[in-house]
Order: sequence, then C-alpha cells, then structure tokens
Amino acid sequence: MIRFVKGHGTENDFVLLPDPDGTLDLTDALVRRVCDRRAGIGGDGVLRVVRAAAHPDGTAMADRAEWFMDYRNADGSAAEMCGNGIRVFARFLVAEGLAPAGKMSIATRDGVKAVRLGPVGDVTVDMGPAHLPGSDRKVTVGARSWPAVEVDVGNPHAVVFLDDLADAGPLDEAPTVEPGLPGGVNVEFVADRGPRHVALRVHERGVGETRSCGTGACAVMVASARRDGVNTPGGPDGLSYVVDVPGGRLTVTERADGHLELTGPAVLVAEGTLDQTWLAGA
Amino acid sequence: MIRFVKGHGTENDFVLLPDPDGTLDLTDALVRRVCDRRAGIGGDGVLRVVRAAAHPDGTAMADRAEWFMDYRNADGSAAEMCGNGIRVFARFLVAEGLAPAGKMSIATRDGVKAVRLGPVGDVTVDMGPAHLPGSDRKVTVGARSWPAVEVDVGNPHAVVFLDDLADAGPLDEAPTVEPGLPGGVNVEFVADRGPRHVALRVHERGVGETRSCGTGACAVMVASARRDGVNTPGGPDGLSYVVDVPGGRLTVTERADGHLELTGPAVLVAEGTLDQTWLAGA
Repeated sequence: MIRFVKGHGTENDFVLLPDPDGTLDLTDALVRRVCDRRAGIGGDGVLRVVRAAAHPDGTAMADRAEWFMDYRNADGSAAEMCGNGIRVFARFLVAEGLAPAGKMSIATRDGVKAVRLGPVGDVTVDMGPAHLPGSDRKVTVGARSWPAVEVDVGNPHAVVFLDDLADAGPLDEAPTVEPGLPGGVNVEFVADRGPRHVALRVHERGVGETRSCGTGACAVMVASARRDGVNTPGGPDGLSYVVDVPGGRLTVTERADGHLELTGPAVLVAEGTLDQTWLAGA
Repeated sequence: MIRFVKGHGTENDFVLLPDPDGTLDLTDALVRRVCDRRAGIGGDGVLRVVRAAAHPDGTAMADRAEWFMDYRNADGSAAEMCGNGIRVFARFLVAEGLAPAGKMSIATRDGVKAVRLGPVGDVTVDMGPAHLPGSDRKVTVGARSWPAVEVDVGNPHAVVFLDDLADAGPLDEAPTVEPGLPGGVNVEFVADRGPRHVALRVHERGVGETRSCGTGACAVMVASARRDGVNTPGGPDGLSYVVDVPGGRLTVTERADGHLELTGPAVLVAEGTLDQTWLAGA
C-alpha cells in the first residue's frame, strides 16, 4: 500500500509520499503518473518524505536534519528546493507527529533549510540571501518592453514594475529577457497594493505562468524594498512586505543578516492510498 | 470524516463521495472546492454515491435501481448523465462490494441506466438510441468551414469528417455551428484509423476541448456507420466501432434495437479522506 497526502502552498500543489525508510521505488514514470491531473492524483510535483539517513542525497546532512525533502517535478526529474513545497512538507511532519511544532531543519538538495511553524497556521522558511547585481535587464512581451531589475535568489529573476498587472497581457509564451541566460530567467511583474504590500504575476522558466513562486516572491520583495529606498532591513524584526500571488498571500521578511524569510500557508487537503490495480498500470 | 475515491474514464475524471444514506451536505461550494485542481482534489465533477431511496431525485426510481448517481459539474451545478462517469460509478460499486459484478441498473437524473461489467476490466452502459435528423450543419473554426452531420444522443452534436484531426487547428474557442442552438452544440472532428475504427477530437459546449466525451463517441459512431453505408446494425451482436478519444479508447456498439452501448475503461486511482481542517475552510 502506498500512502499519499495532497497539499498545497498558495496553490502550488504537491503529492506527498511518506517513505520514512526509503523503500519506495520512486521511478520517474511513477512520479509522472501520480502528478497526472486526470489519470492520477494531480500535482505540480511529488514530495517524498524520507529520513535523510535513508536517501543517498540526504545522508551527508543526516547529522543536521532528520528528514530529507526528495522533491520531484511533475515530469519526474529531481528538483533542488521549493519555498512553497517545503512549507507543506513541514506542515505534514507536524500533522503526522513526525516532528514537533517549532523550529526544525529540513534537508533538501539545496542544503539544510531552517523552518519554523506552530501547531497550526502559516509556515516560515529561511530562503537565504538575495543578490542584486545592479545591472539592468529588459523584458519584452509581444510589442511591449519594460526595464527589469535583476535579482538572484539561488535562481535568476527579472522584476518588472507595472501600474497594473493586466498590462503584461497574456503570458502564454515566455517573455523575452535581455540579456538572457542559457537556462532562462524567471520573470515577475509587480504592482503596488499599499505600503509594503505588492502583488505579482510570475512566469517561471520552463513552466509558464503559475499561481505562485516562492523565490519569485522573495525577488519581488527585495526589488520593491530597494525601489522604495529601503537599503537595510533595520530593526530586530527585519523588514516585511506582503506579496500577493495569484494563489494566495505570502509575506517576505528581510532579516538584519540579509536572509529572506518566506511565510505563507501550507494546506493539507486529503490523505489516502493509491489503488493497487492503478499502481499495477491499469 | 468524508471519504473520497478519485477515478477516471478515458481521462474524464471524478471525485466519488460515498454517501449511502444521503447525510452529506453537498453544497455547490463544497463541490467546487473538491474539484479545484490545485486547492482541492481536482476533477471534472463529483459523483455522490447515494441510495436512490435516500435522495430526492432518486426516490421515484428506487424500485428499479438501488443506487443513484448524484452527478455534479465542477461548478457545483447538478448534471443529468455522463457516459464516462457512470462507468466509474459502477466500477466503484463493485470494488466496494456495494453491488455484484454483472448487470446492474443505476438511477440518474436522466432515468435508470443499464450497466454491465465484470469483476475487473471495461464497463458497458446503454446510452439509449441516437437520432439523425438528416439535416446538415456547418462548422467553422477560424477561416475554415466544413459540412457537419447533426446527431442527437440526448444532447446535440455536429460531426465533421476530416482527413487529419490536426486540420481542425486549435480549439481554444468554441467552433461556430450553423444553424446553432440556444444552449450550444457539441462538435466532434473525426478521422479514420481503419475499418470500423475512428479517432475524434471533441469540443464540449460550455466546457472546451476535452479528453473524452461519451455521447460524442456515440454520435461519431452513428455518423461514421451511416457514412460507411451501414444503415442497420444487423446480427445479434450489433455493429461495433472503436472510437479513439484523446484520453483513451472507447467502443460503441449499435444494437439491433437501435440502442448504443458505450464500452470503455473505468479506473479507480486512489481513495482516502478529506482533511478536517481543509474541510473547515482553511
């Protein structure tokens, strides 16, 4: 019997597969079938919940984190980290009694991440620092172009400020970014909603327009703060911006040490087991 | 605790909610939340499994069918019948031990339907007769138009024969059908695959291009048979066509009495329970 839990963070959704001892043969084909939105459960990816000591990519971190987030994209490929996924992962650990609420460390392919959460409610994850090289990019959609701020949050972003998010038009095709990068660049369009409150639309490289992007929210927060003339986070509580995404609301806090904390919902929707006949390939 | 089962028939997918005694308060809002592909389980609709005697729309049929298929569209509205859904519904009854394999009658808002299935494998449902008024329609997509055959299978269809299904182009918008109907017309594009074997693409009115449509497959079978010069089903086994849809393979058999039998897969993917916190509206 293979158990699963379906959950989402700001509508970035995942199928969690509890596999504490790493005994599940999680092939690319199984991930693709599970993530199929019509012939399977459906999700943006799979989060296998496995002890760090029981997974080849986690053993080196087993002294610092009990659990390893084996994150796979819907196509089966291994992924490093996901700011929405790790919140759902942490909420699952607490809900299942596999870890106490409070502060915890979770191993990922991008290293050990610090997470904190209460018995219920939002989850906060340390996303590390962002870098603003200071160079400009140009983003083009159809016949319109805008200047963009370059931000690196582990992956590359180009942030465009608009008066109205609708001005970006349909994002069915990837915006053109100049200068570009071989692997592509994530593009965020941002509009103000109030003091230290913005809203975004995001086009994720290789995916398309999505309901939410954790690193995108971080990039947007830092770009917005710098635009607003706030160059240092200041104060022990850091500097917080509310970042509305199409799938919900996130808060990004820049700490005094420059790390970005991403806070947002982590919702467990359902739990159950995969059908044996379906698993056998029906 | 609300139990659910997710299943699909040729990738027309459903969340089944077992509710034998009709005690579940199945609001439109709950259906929409369950069918949400990112914030819920995800599905084209909900199939509540309730005893006919326990549902207001089923009581009049309770002497002829034990179970009532309370079918809801993803937007929460009640729907009459679904040739893919009822196969999944019947497979669920057998898998759960609520009905023996073999022949069974299932109550729907479109009346009592005759279904038969073995312990495993495909499921067959009597879809009733089709009517070909003999009048022609014209279907237009962008700058191209084709003559279409009008078929009524309880709902209205316009069937267009093509050499290549790709010729219909993208079906992002509803094809124009002339003469039209106030509620719209389902449009099928058909290409030959071999003797008594066709493939289709379908645009369902009010929905868009879909992976499968049971009544569409029936309409296409009859239109193809008449085009092939077969005007009577002939023989005790009737006349069968294989109809490939984007989500899989169906077989439609025209019986001597003119009824169409739809045969195809019914796959149960997973079962479980909805999360209590999620249900409470988190």
